[in-house]
Formats: sequence, structure tokens, C-alpha cells
Amino acid sequence: MKNIRNILNSRFKRNGNFFMEIHKILGFKPKEVKFYKVAFTHRSMNLKDSKGNAINYERLEFLGDAMLSSVIASHLYLEVPSGDEGYLTKMRSKIVSREHLNELGKELKLINLVESKIPQGQFGDNIHGNLFEALIGAIFLDRGYKYCEKFIYTRVIIPYVDIETLEGKVISYKSLLIEWCQKEKKTFNYNVYDDTGNDQLRHFSVKLSINDKVISKARATSKKKAEEKASKRAFFALQNKISKPNSV
Amino acid sequence: MKNIRNILNSRFKRNGNFFMEIHKILGFKPKEVKFYKVAFTHRSMNLKDSKGNAINYERLEFLGDAMLSSVIASHLYLEVPSGDEGYLTKMRSKIVSREHLNELGKELKLINLVESKIPQGQFGDNIHGNLFEALIGAIFLDRGYKYCEKFIYTRVIIPYVDIETLEGKVISYKSLLIEWCQKEKKTFNYNVYDDTGNDQLRHFSVKLSINDKVISKARATSKKKAEEKASKRAFFALQNKISKPNSV
Repeated sequence: MKNIRNILNSRFKRNGNFFMEIHKILGFKPKEVKFYKVAFTHRSMNLKDSKGNAINYERLEFLGDAMLSSVIASHLYLEVPSGDEGYLTKMRSKIVSREHLNELGKELKLINLVESKIPQGQFGDNIHGNLFEALIGAIFLDRGYKYCEKFIYTRVIIPYVDIETLEGKVISYKSLLIEWCQKEKKTFNYNVYDDTGNDQLRHFSVKLSINDKVISKARATSKKKAEEKASKRAFFALQNKISKPNSV
Repeated sequence: MKNIRNILNSRFKRNGNFFMEIHKILGFKPKEVKFYKVAFTHRSMNLKDSKGNAINYERLEFLGDAMLSSVIASHLYLEVPSGDEGYLTKMRSKIVSREHLNELGKELKLINLVESKIPQGQFGDNIHGNLFEALIGAIFLDRGYKYCEKFIYTRVIIPYVDIETLEGKVISYKSLLIEWCQKEKKTFNYNVYDDTGNDQLRHFSVKLSINDKVISKARATSKKKAEEKASKRAFFALQNKISKPNSV
């Protein structure tokens, strides 16, 4: 244990900030930072413990994936009492899809914490989701199942798991929002601008105003995605006012 | 909640014994028997709650499968620090294979608790594993993750998860045992007899004696399986004395 901790401490460039940055992402204090350091150690660092076992986040992905699957399973089980086994399985795969995990990892900017010998630009897109899974694995080792559940609720279920969207009943939040504005005779404006900054990829930001008041903001790699994200946020902010076509 | 409980109470033939039987299988007291009743309600009972949702064990299979996968994942992660992601995934699928789950369900004789309109003989082999998964799902709902973990350790990991056997390093416990007896100049005897009883399928029992002392017993659907099972049990009973070919 000590051994791994020492190896990690000597290799982590950002030791000082790491605890704070992890704390911010988790929303609770880590007990044992070591687990999180493993979760952000890329295989290119080529670290090994005294027995020659590799130290990097790949095994934690396996663990985190399992925890994520079981937390989502229990959420869906309780949330959708009318859904049979096949339905629950399908919904879960939508939530834990590679694409979705990559988005979650990106939003948390996990890649900024990675210790690696490879430049960030050379990682594929999947690194975001892999880090997200590894982080969940680290939470499990550090604080147990309950904290995993808590983290997944805060970071995945509350902001992203909307059963009706997953079922495809809501096709586009933008069209829902526009429809509502027209019905309510409100003006709306999507103000989109280039916001690439230091990123490798081009990014766009959007400010969505309703009746000239900014109601939500979003940033994404395409104009369309940024608009949809901002619409979704506005939708949830206004959710008591706007009703979904299939809601009861 | 009350509604489901009443429906189940009115349909369960063995209400009186059910609590006791479940208690025996679990090794701890159930808090809310209702969940376990759902876990043993076959779809042929055609039960529905007041909202028209089906009450049977099929959704619980989904939940139990997820819990089983995550408990096994965390066990393997901690137990095999040298195993990479691919290895861990492969080992887990061996442990939670359909065949293995069916065996586990059979050993606990879960089928005897099922409420169904179909005679037992008409169920396929998979019902045993399905009930085992559903039971784990019920434990999760009743007592949470910790108790699931406890149950899976007692019923799956401790008796059945031997990493070297899973890796295929130990081909046959019988040959290992015979080899050891010969080396140690001990006599051994596999006493096999027909033990079908009231079962649908033919069953065999075996008593394994070493130096005329019965060391283990087992029962299975073939002579070979019963002998292997008894050998494995003897192996674990004698484990400090016999060493596996690949052990350190």
C-alpha cells in the first residue's frame, strides 16, 4: 500500500492540486488519494508496484463499469416498474453507451488530470469515458458502494437520465422549446459563437435567451449540439412550465 | 406496497413456511418477505399490481444479475492484482456463466419455492439460475448492497470461486486427490450409489473415504460429476496438506 502511494507521489506532477481537483469533481472528500491517482495514471507512465503489477487506470475501468451498471440497474428497476427485463436492459445500454460515457468524462474535463507520457492530442475519444469509469472504480475502493451510488446519481442520473428522452419520445429539446415559446408568445434567441480557446477541437458556445433574458448556456463541438444542450438545460430550468408531449 | 403484499399473500400457498425457508437459504432474517415472494413468483401466475404491472421474478433477474456482476468484479479486482481488464472480464464470465448459475440455484433447491401454474418438470434448466439471480435482486431491495455482497460471498465466492480452477490450472480434483493419496500412501474409496429419490432426473451420491474415514459427500446428475464434487470438497477440507501444482 505504502509502496504504491510512494511511487504515485513521486510521479504525479500536480500533487499539490490533485486533492483539491478531485474533491471538486467528487463533491466529497477522498479518504485515500492513492486510488484516484491510479485512476488518472495512463499506461504510458509504465508504473509498476513492487511485485511487478502494472499501475494504471485500466483495471479500474473494469471495476467502475460494473458499479455503474449496477447503480443504473437499480435506478431503472425502481423508476420504471412497468418495464420488463428487455426494456431495462435496453435502457441501461443507452445510458452507459460509450458515447455517453465519453460525454460525461469530457464535461468533467477528466483528461486534464491524466498523468501520461503521450500528449493529450494523441488520445482517442474513448479516453474520456475510460477515465470516467476508472474514477467510479476508485470511488468504490475509497468509499464503498454508497458513495458510488451518490456520485452516479449526481453526475449521471439527475442531469442525464430522462426516461422519456431515452425512449425517444422527446426527439429534440430545441423543437420542444421553440414550440412552447411560440405557444406562449415569448421571443427566443440562440446566440451561438466560436469558443475554441486552447482546445484541439473547434468548439461552439451558445446563450439561449427567452424574452431577452439569458436562460441557459452550453458549449459543444458543433452548433447543433450546443443548441440542443442549451435547450435541454432551459427545459429543465422551466420544467414546471413546459410539459413534454408524452408526460402525464 | 400494501397492495402487492396482499396480492402475494393471497396467492402464496406456503405462506407459513416461506419465511423460514427463505431465512435458511439467506442465512439472515429477511426484513420484507414481499420481495422474496416476487422472486419466487413465476409469470404463469399472471399476477398484476393495481397499475397493471406484472408481478413475477423476471425483472428481479435483471437487478440480481447486475449486483452479482458487480460483487464478483470487486472480488476479482482485489483478489487478482496481476490480472488485466481482459483477464478480469473473462474470469467473471466464467463465474456468472448460465451453467454455473443453474448449478447454484439447483444446490439451494430454489425451484421448490416457486409459485407457478406450470408443473416443475416443464421448466427448462435455466429456471435454476434465473431464480438465483432473482433472489439476489430481492436481497438488494430488502437489505441493500452489503447483504448482497455477504450472500454472494457465502454462496458463490467462498465455495466456488477458486481462481486456479477457473484459470484451468486444476483440471480435475479427482486426479489431484488420487495422486496425493498415492504419494502419501493412503487408501481411498469412492462409494457411488443411486440417489434419485423424488427427483425428475436421475441423481448419484458419492461418499469419499480416505484411510477408511469418510472425508466428503456429494450428489450430482452423473457419477463423474458427483465424484469430482466430492473430490473438490475433500481437497478444500485437506487444503493445507495437498498443494496444487501451480500454487506458490
